[in-house]
Amino acid sequence: MPNWLLPENIADVLPSEARKIEDLRRLILDNFRLYGYELVMPPMLEYLESLLAGAGLDTDLRTFKLVDQLSGRTLGIRADMTTQVARIDAHLLNRESVTRLCYVGSVLHTRQIGLHATREPLQIGAEIYGHLGLEADAEIQELALATLALAGISQVRLDLCHVGILRTIIGGDEAAKVNEIALVALLEAKDLPGLRTISVNYKPETRAALLALPGLYGDASVLQEARQKLPASPAIAKALDELETLAEAAGKDYVTVDLADLRGYHYESGLIFAAYVPGLPNAILRGGRYDVGAAFGRSRPATGFSMDLRELARLIPVAIRKRAIHAPWGIEAGLKEKIVELRKAGEVVIQSLPGHENDQDEFDCDRAVVLENGNWIIKNLD
Amino acid sequence: MPNWLLPENIADVLPSEARKIEDLRRLILDNFRLYGYELVMPPMLEYLESLLAGAGLDTDLRTFKLVDQLSGRTLGIRADMTTQVARIDAHLLNRESVTRLCYVGSVLHTRQIGLHATREPLQIGAEIYGHLGLEADAEIQELALATLALAGISQVRLDLCHVGILRTIIGGDEAAKVNEIALVALLEAKDLPGLRTISVNYKPETRAALLALPGLYGDASVLQEARQKLPASPAIAKALDELETLAEAAGKDYVTVDLADLRGYHYESGLIFAAYVPGLPNAILRGGRYDVGAAFGRSRPATGFSMDLRELARLIPVAIRKRAIHAPWGIEAGLKEKIVELRKAGEVVIQSLPGHENDQDEFDCDRAVVLENGNWIIKNLD
Repeated sequence: MPNWLLPENIADVLPSEARKIEDLRRLILDNFRLYGYELVMPPMLEYLESLLAGAGLDTDLRTFKLVDQLSGRTLGIRADMTTQVARIDAHLLNRESVTRLCYVGSVLHTRQIGLHATREPLQIGAEIYGHLGLEADAEIQELALATLALAGISQVRLDLCHVGILRTIIGGDEAAKVNEIALVALLEAKDLPGLRTISVNYKPETRAALLALPGLYGDASVLQEARQKLPASPAIAKALDELETLAEAAGKDYVTVDLADLRGYHYESGLIFAAYVPGLPNAILRGGRYDVGAAFGRSRPATGFSMDLRELARLIPVAIRKRAIHAPWGIEAGLKEKIVELRKAGEVVIQSLPGHENDQDEFDCDRAVVLENGNWIIKNLD
Repeated sequence: MPNWLLPENIADVLPSEARKIEDLRRLILDNFRLYGYELVMPPMLEYLESLLAGAGLDTDLRTFKLVDQLSGRTLGIRADMTTQVARIDAHLLNRESVTRLCYVGSVLHTRQIGLHATREPLQIGAEIYGHLGLEADAEIQELALATLALAGISQVRLDLCHVGILRTIIGGDEAAKVNEIALVALLEAKDLPGLRTISVNYKPETRAALLALPGLYGDASVLQEARQKLPASPAIAKALDELETLAEAAGKDYVTVDLADLRGYHYESGLIFAAYVPGLPNAILRGGRYDVGAAFGRSRPATGFSMDLRELARLIPVAIRKRAIHAPWGIEAGLKEKIVELRKAGEVVIQSLPGHENDQDEFDCDRAVVLENGNWIIKNLD
């Protein structure tokens, strides 16, 4: 097998794509900063227990495991940065105040999620810690939409859900509670026959509510329908109120509600959302409320979002190739000074190496540095 | 063991340090671009054979190995990006012309190199492919020094060596050639007794030259001394000429020569260099000439340098904390518009979440958005 073959769902990023990703990375991180989010850089590698603390089974199966030569303990390569950043907030920064953090970095997955997905997403995201109120969710939702807008993506559909609804429905029914993991899978698949079979021995009101959930999707009017079809409990009413508020904040025309879209249920604790864009079957961005701080010694309410920067970059057109200036090889002071001056002014200056003066290169060299009457000047090429 | 403990020589990067690293990363990548170097992003993970193709034994021992669930083959987490970028040049881009590439990314090491070193350097570097002449080495050396200057580091000592010298010395002596690996280690340690013992049965001229090498270090005048003490072979004379030219290009006052500093010998093929700064025992930056293209189907002369961006960032003073503006929580259109306008102008605006108005945060909020006579205005805080 040739040496240049890469593993499945692993790829190099070549210059034009890398440039787009780098530009987008800076735009997004700068915007996070304008909202007061501070950048942190957790490591690629941690003890497995730390990486999986508070994370779900999915993350465990997705995490590459290694043995540490120094300690003999099992290490994991991060498959998700969210718990790492929560660890930094809960333990390392250990502030009482509201803390806003952001991050960007590669994560690795043992198997891809979805058919065409990469096993090495470049995860970028932002999180708020220390505030339980809906205002934090609203800020995160606003920032998520602003991030997509920065990439020039305006046709966004925001899909809202709330894990509190299912938790409340099965909370009072022991028979349903023991099936929690299976129920989440059936609801995500909108598998009504499966839900009917599993719920035969549940309380009638639990069963009715579970069977109603897969139908509760569509525009924001679904929330009204849900108030009639779901049990009249204060917790469910509160969850629906929260969904209503956030749907209004995002602009109801862009929002859909899907009360059975429970991805991340085992990890999340309140409102969850996903953003979809035309042409991509999977969500481009996911977020929601959770609390994994307790796993690191201190319970902290948290809400945030993240996405794969590489996937986002693929959605936007190729960056314009930058103009450049050709210069001959040489170490004469005059030439060197001219080149330094041009580069200081932000011009890309490429010195041809001897014998390669006629090489085609990847920059659009539309000008050249040439010697005329003893002076190094810029000449247009055409 | 608590969940927040990290493995040895693995660390989080907290906001103030992360900010410095991010600023430096952009400065350096932008400067690479001004020289015509295009950014590429190789993956964290490859088949082990690809990662180690053309790399030395050191890299093998330093590479974490994994089993791929998809193919059943052994994968490696990159311990060095240089061979990856050489693979991209040789196989993927496959250009005949001179190609300039740069990269930045985390690499992982099973064991740290040196006492205080990290196991997760953030490698940043630049490489030229396709030109065998000294001009490429000169450009790389210039770019390496310019990179350190960008970080504000001016007191740099550049240490030059050339692997061609040892190759030539032992090239004509079978007894010495079989000891190549041991000889490199003894020379690096400047272990004269060890060199005397190992070389007992070598040809007398080989032995004399090997015993001379550890003493051939100091300022650029060492090159003159070397011409007398080393065998008068054309290959050695050429290597010394190349060293002379590059010492002059860098400015002889900043250059030292150490003909026994052969780190990377098994991988490099010509001139090698290392940059040292006050206060750091290890080199801050290393570079040199090599050719690993053949391992990927096409021989390509190459020269480049790389360094750990985190280590570089530690050498420079803490970035100034940026000023910020406080804003109350609220969704009134007037307030939202004011905040958007301020952020567009590059101001960091932090909205306090209800109940957290008096939180101390990490930004210096010296101004606040307040409502006066029905208008949202900026007020200085003191």
